[in-house]
Amino acid sequence: MVASDFATIPLAEMAQQTRQAARQLAGLSGDTRDRALEAIAAALESLSPTILAANAADCDAAIADGISPALHARLKLSETKLAATIAGVRSLRQLPDPLGQVQIDRELAPDLLLKRVTCPLGVLAVVFEARPEALIQIASLAIKSGNGVILKGGKEAVRSCQMLTAAVHRGLAAMGLPTAAVQLLTTRAETQALLALENDIDLIVPRGSNDFVRYVQRHTNIPVLGHADGICHLYVDASADVDMAVRLTVDAKTQYPAACNAIETLLVHAQIAPDFLPAVARALTDAGVQLRGDSQTCGLIAALPAEASDWSLEYSDLILAIKVVDSAEAAIAHIHTYGSRHTEAIATTDAQVAAQFLNQVDAASVFHNCSTRFADGFRYGFGAEVGISTQKLPPRGPVGLEGLVTYQYQVTGRGQIVADYTGENAQPFTHRDR
Amino acid sequence: MVASDFATIPLAEMAQQTRQAARQLAGLSGDTRDRALEAIAAALESLSPTILAANAADCDAAIADGISPALHARLKLSETKLAATIAGVRSLRQLPDPLGQVQIDRELAPDLLLKRVTCPLGVLAVVFEARPEALIQIASLAIKSGNGVILKGGKEAVRSCQMLTAAVHRGLAAMGLPTAAVQLLTTRAETQALLALENDIDLIVPRGSNDFVRYVQRHTNIPVLGHADGICHLYVDASADVDMAVRLTVDAKTQYPAACNAIETLLVHAQIAPDFLPAVARALTDAGVQLRGDSQTCGLIAALPAEASDWSLEYSDLILAIKVVDSAEAAIAHIHTYGSRHTEAIATTDAQVAAQFLNQVDAASVFHNCSTRFADGFRYGFGAEVGISTQKLPPRGPVGLEGLVTYQYQVTGRGQIVADYTGENAQPFTHRDR
Repeated sequence: MVASDFATIPLAEMAQQTRQAARQLAGLSGDTRDRALEAIAAALESLSPTILAANAADCDAAIADGISPALHARLKLSETKLAATIAGVRSLRQLPDPLGQVQIDRELAPDLLLKRVTCPLGVLAVVFEARPEALIQIASLAIKSGNGVILKGGKEAVRSCQMLTAAVHRGLAAMGLPTAAVQLLTTRAETQALLALENDIDLIVPRGSNDFVRYVQRHTNIPVLGHADGICHLYVDASADVDMAVRLTVDAKTQYPAACNAIETLLVHAQIAPDFLPAVARALTDAGVQLRGDSQTCGLIAALPAEASDWSLEYSDLILAIKVVDSAEAAIAHIHTYGSRHTEAIATTDAQVAAQFLNQVDAASVFHNCSTRFADGFRYGFGAEVGISTQKLPPRGPVGLEGLVTYQYQVTGRGQIVADYTGENAQPFTHRDR
Repeated sequence: MVASDFATIPLAEMAQQTRQAARQLAGLSGDTRDRALEAIAAALESLSPTILAANAADCDAAIADGISPALHARLKLSETKLAATIAGVRSLRQLPDPLGQVQIDRELAPDLLLKRVTCPLGVLAVVFEARPEALIQIASLAIKSGNGVILKGGKEAVRSCQMLTAAVHRGLAAMGLPTAAVQLLTTRAETQALLALENDIDLIVPRGSNDFVRYVQRHTNIPVLGHADGICHLYVDASADVDMAVRLTVDAKTQYPAACNAIETLLVHAQIAPDFLPAVARALTDAGVQLRGDSQTCGLIAALPAEASDWSLEYSDLILAIKVVDSAEAAIAHIHTYGSRHTEAIATTDAQVAAQFLNQVDAASVFHNCSTRFADGFRYGFGAEVGISTQKLPPRGPVGLEGLVTYQYQVTGRGQIVADYTGENAQPFTHRDR
């Protein structure tokens, strides 16, 4: 069965097939799941020419449709990129098995034992941009964590995604595993329909534009792992090291302006503004950044006047809004009003102000004297990143494999009943951790 | 300011006041939050006569409205019940501080240090039944965990809730803490409006009827901690100890039939059915349980014929559906079709079948040879129960204080920028746990 055949199966039924297949994956040892990853890597290698040809066809069609150079660069799967992706699949084997980890091991009463054990979520749905290697990264994370996954890639990448899915299926089949564990959708209508399957899908991971993520968050009762906005700030405190603050600003704004962890607004303490702003303005202008400032900023450096709406914008581009504030408290208040709880940073040499900032700022990641661009699952050492979540409940921030697992309470006894542990002559609970 | 004054403040503004107050709570030491609990306990004690009088007025009004004896028993706040509730507030002080726990402590690179630290969710909304002591339990859990909370109790308990809130406020004020940390709603319209405040409320905990919980789950984008259904099963395997299985069945069905962790359906292996069913039928009939069986069951014992709908019903009453199955696999398949992922149990002396059941059944709690009624935060040793969640993502199952906290990544450096850690001459990450 090739990927495109699935489109003819009703979506709920398809998700239920994925659940059945996922239950089979979940029952495998970590070692067997790792061997399945190796089989997939091998299948990708042997199918590389076909995959690259399918991708070339996608690229040709996209160019004919007038795709932007940036999107084309994402869509294009070079031999090097494919090899790196295959290496990524193999490197997942080094990560510890996320399943079967005992988080609590407790005697509730004599011979009544409680364990809390990690287990897969079940069926994931991941909707991603036209970046073909994402399919492999996601499918291999799902298999590593014993989950089934329903994938939908950006429409420009449809041929690439179909061939990559075929390779994943070949790898699964070589291990005698059900190919329904990884399924591909190819139409936007299916993505829409997916949002209604709250009984069949356990987690949805939307990637891509902010508007799309927000749309998914608003239109489904399935839990969503993702973030709509990345409005991050750097606050340069009165006591900041000016040179360091300049370097942090330039990196956080320009190292990859489209990233969600790039800064959009710079907050500067009034005391340091006369020293810091001219220095940072030079560096940013040299890097091609357009500056938009509040009135105090515009009094110190050349900048366009910022409008009220600038404080809520995620430029995702070489544009930076700058505001002068009177105190760390004012900076924190601004962040709480306009930030998206993603990543917030302070530059200061004052340990007390740094502690105040880290403890009071309500964001998934809070940084002191380092670039916001470090907010990332790979950089945090999670080995693989499922996504970055800006919701308050865990998993929050950069999410590795642990975002794809949950846990279950397992209690074993020798016939205990609650009637014996309640009322007048209740037997006591011991609650002893083992 | 007394509780009822809040009704005049627009709801979003009120929630924002609660957030401000919660931020103040979050900044306190665990010891200070514990002392606030003591101040609340003392205020409850000194206001006991007024609280009991308000509750008596609630009870009189409810009786005049023809309240059922069961609901009246819940509404009634006796001196003993109030004293036990106050003792409960004090006992919370014994639990470890859920805030500031370091979950990850890692060197990302030299002098670039990552910590994952627990912190409060922010603002909780809890909608509960007409059981006044629930207000105190919830408010004290919120304060212990550094959260603000907006409460709405069942309408029959409105006078009691207002007086209890006044006592909480007196305790907070005595510590110089903002009373807005704990706010009371009194109308159903406010509860409705609450569901739309996704930017101002971080978690909603609905308690009460299944229909109400389901309504909340469907009508808000705020994360919901709760469960709509509790359709739990006991599967009696071929190799079960008949006496033990009878005891487990009786306890799981009758010890508290209205509880969500009581069983609704008994699944019985065909091999043991001729021995087990007559024995369990006697015990259940003695306990006043009405039996509804499939055709095989009705061939072995006296039972009403079960309809197809019986397998999906949460009776919450002394009624039990019984089905004979041919294998553990068939029992698991039935559970996956009809169960609500709450609590599922097996009675068996076969260790292999037990392991299969625990590993394959997809439910928050899975039990071997013990009553499903043990699925409860107090019995699990969590000290305090926020609720039981049947969603897949953590927190799952019985949820203690950890359900009211989240975490934050705090990274401290000495000016590191990402540009130095990417590309050709990238500095390496060390990713060393400390």
